[in-house]
Amino acid sequence: MQTPWDHRYAQRTQKMGSSAIRELLKLTELPDIISFAGGLPAPEVFPLDAFSEACVRVLREIGAQSLQYGTTEGYRPLKEMIARHTARYSLEITPDNILITTGSQQALDLLGKILINPGDRILVESPTYLGALQAWSAYGAEYVTVPMDEHGMITDALEDALRSGPKFIYVLPNFQNPSGVTLSIERRLRLIELADQYGVPIVEDDPYGQLRYEGEHLPAVMVLDSKERENCGACYLGNVIYTSTFSKILAPGIRLAWVIAPPEVIEKLVQAKQGSDLHTSTFNQIVSYEASKGGFLDEHISLIKDVYKERRDLMMASMDGYFPPGVDWTHPEGGLFTWVKMPENLNAAEVLKTAIQEKVAFVPGSPFFPLGGGHNTFRLNFSNAHPDRIREGISRLGHVLSRYMGESTLT
Amino acid sequence: MQTPWDHRYAQRTQKMGSSAIRELLKLTELPDIISFAGGLPAPEVFPLDAFSEACVRVLREIGAQSLQYGTTEGYRPLKEMIARHTARYSLEITPDNILITTGSQQALDLLGKILINPGDRILVESPTYLGALQAWSAYGAEYVTVPMDEHGMITDALEDALRSGPKFIYVLPNFQNPSGVTLSIERRLRLIELADQYGVPIVEDDPYGQLRYEGEHLPAVMVLDSKERENCGACYLGNVIYTSTFSKILAPGIRLAWVIAPPEVIEKLVQAKQGSDLHTSTFNQIVSYEASKGGFLDEHISLIKDVYKERRDLMMASMDGYFPPGVDWTHPEGGLFTWVKMPENLNAAEVLKTAIQEKVAFVPGSPFFPLGGGHNTFRLNFSNAHPDRIREGISRLGHVLSRYMGESTLT
Repeated sequence: MQTPWDHRYAQRTQKMGSSAIRELLKLTELPDIISFAGGLPAPEVFPLDAFSEACVRVLREIGAQSLQYGTTEGYRPLKEMIARHTARYSLEITPDNILITTGSQQALDLLGKILINPGDRILVESPTYLGALQAWSAYGAEYVTVPMDEHGMITDALEDALRSGPKFIYVLPNFQNPSGVTLSIERRLRLIELADQYGVPIVEDDPYGQLRYEGEHLPAVMVLDSKERENCGACYLGNVIYTSTFSKILAPGIRLAWVIAPPEVIEKLVQAKQGSDLHTSTFNQIVSYEASKGGFLDEHISLIKDVYKERRDLMMASMDGYFPPGVDWTHPEGGLFTWVKMPENLNAAEVLKTAIQEKVAFVPGSPFFPLGGGHNTFRLNFSNAHPDRIREGISRLGHVLSRYMGESTLT
Repeated sequence: MQTPWDHRYAQRTQKMGSSAIRELLKLTELPDIISFAGGLPAPEVFPLDAFSEACVRVLREIGAQSLQYGTTEGYRPLKEMIARHTARYSLEITPDNILITTGSQQALDLLGKILINPGDRILVESPTYLGALQAWSAYGAEYVTVPMDEHGMITDALEDALRSGPKFIYVLPNFQNPSGVTLSIERRLRLIELADQYGVPIVEDDPYGQLRYEGEHLPAVMVLDSKERENCGACYLGNVIYTSTFSKILAPGIRLAWVIAPPEVIEKLVQAKQGSDLHTSTFNQIVSYEASKGGFLDEHISLIKDVYKERRDLMMASMDGYFPPGVDWTHPEGGLFTWVKMPENLNAAEVLKTAIQEKVAFVPGSPFFPLGGGHNTFRLNFSNAHPDRIREGISRLGHVLSRYMGESTLT
């Protein structure tokens, strides 16, 4: 239908486009399909009772406050809890370093709003998180990429990319979305060194850092940046803006995340957020704080890790059993995803069509590469599906892959 | 403190600036101050019990769904409820005409994101809603203004403004924020006629339309636009994008609002929203739907109207009693605000300083005029303060005004 708005869209809408993932998710939500496509937490680990109790208590005790307008900066006790959590990693920040956001997608959007002029280059891992590309392309961002291997961003390739003068480096060091790989400690230090040398600051996106199933916790780039460069090892220096979320450790349906940045940057983000949604739901902030406090969140994360570790192990074992030779995948030490690489002559989008017929789904890798590539890769989520369905789904997918591998040797 | 981000801010941040209202609100939140400054609902009318029951029921019956990721478009039963509500006014829309947003501030932001190129002119009432200016200035909007009187936008002045080629007309026809005035039916029709003649579409912002305390309901501009122009009186033509909110009829702390637009525009808004916050809180959408359904919302709105009518009447009577001659104010038929005009030689920002010393507060009018003016005007909110405090606060303000009026005749 023609509307009077047709010729009135802003130029930036040409860069928007619907998220390929979200469109695919629609397909993969058909009944009977075993979907490894989304990045969804397991519904079994949602803290229903804690949330229910917190809702009732909050509405009874501070109901009027919880339903009223709130400050753009966020609910102070929640920010204080985040500051205490950050202090566990020997980094001292104050509530003035924190902005509560409506999910970490909003954190990415607000960073784009205050930092990106049309044509600015952003340095990203390749592949990288699609949501960041979607947020920043709307502000006219261009991308410079650094390839990855099983230890994360290949820092030997970083200097070349830094010479192009990017506005900032965007990195997901832990169990990256989509690849599942973790940036090694040596490369974290090298990243900080090169960023310093070229005077380019870093945005660190860490949605899964709490969900490690094996190996030792690695310090955040934000933490290392402070420890390595100054005498005051616990000071936050501000070279790294850090974002994390309650989506994976509590629930995504409450849209609750946070940004850590210098107070001056927080102030700019607050101004941007005032125009974007005034503030994040007071009710969700207070209820999440009340549900989390007193040690509950730690216990709950421990439960999530048990469940997800089992699912990861099962998916890894099933792939070992069902996937044909010539197909490789990453071994994620945490998080929600593994990343599969097929032979060069296979196309994941094609394979997906067959997979959907066989009632199993994944996300093709190409959209995660901002400058193209990755046609023979795809992402698998292991957190959402029930163990029975993981085994069955990987079996189906193994059969599909075997057929393609057989065909591909024939053609 | 110097940060590596200092010289990296996008150009658009120069247009952002902190909201004058929000900065002032901080001052007026000091204890003992009777504040008529904010646009806050009365905490006494929040549906605490209905909300508490809905939270418990939702978490028990569809808990996993309510805490999981949801679609960007919004929770379908909630959209169907909004479509049924709209049908009461003889306008037929479908869920495809609706996007659920994270408060109507987000609706304004997303409209800016998809429609405004830097330098685009937006036609607004003067004074107009500050939040719209804040959202759109970030996208580089310029403004063309049309003055108002007690019947709303003066449509005789509209043609001149339309000749400047604005991208769209922004209008708040019911109990406008900040002025409290209502656009008469004759002017609504004239607005539609001129918009049609100049080919300029309309954005109608209607946060308070349900809260009328006297007189007959006036059809929305969106409804009139369809009834007047086509044989199909119940069809939605798409010339008017309409937005409204649950903030004033349920609670603002849940950040829940909606947009009505042609499906093609909704699709663009969805793309923009994917990059902005993925989707509005699933939990808040489902709980609000469950709390509202089955007639509760109608009953609740009736309760709110009783409470707010009493407060409006009391504020009007108190102003009659305590304000000195030479000070005028609007008579709002609904909504949350009245608008006060002092003699030209008084400055509301100056008067506010004295008022705060006397423990009473309001919002000066100037920031609501995008092209300047209104130094002698201010906005009073009558919904938030308890009746006892309305009487006392207006008495204090009357004394402050009398002192200024006395002084102003002496100097």
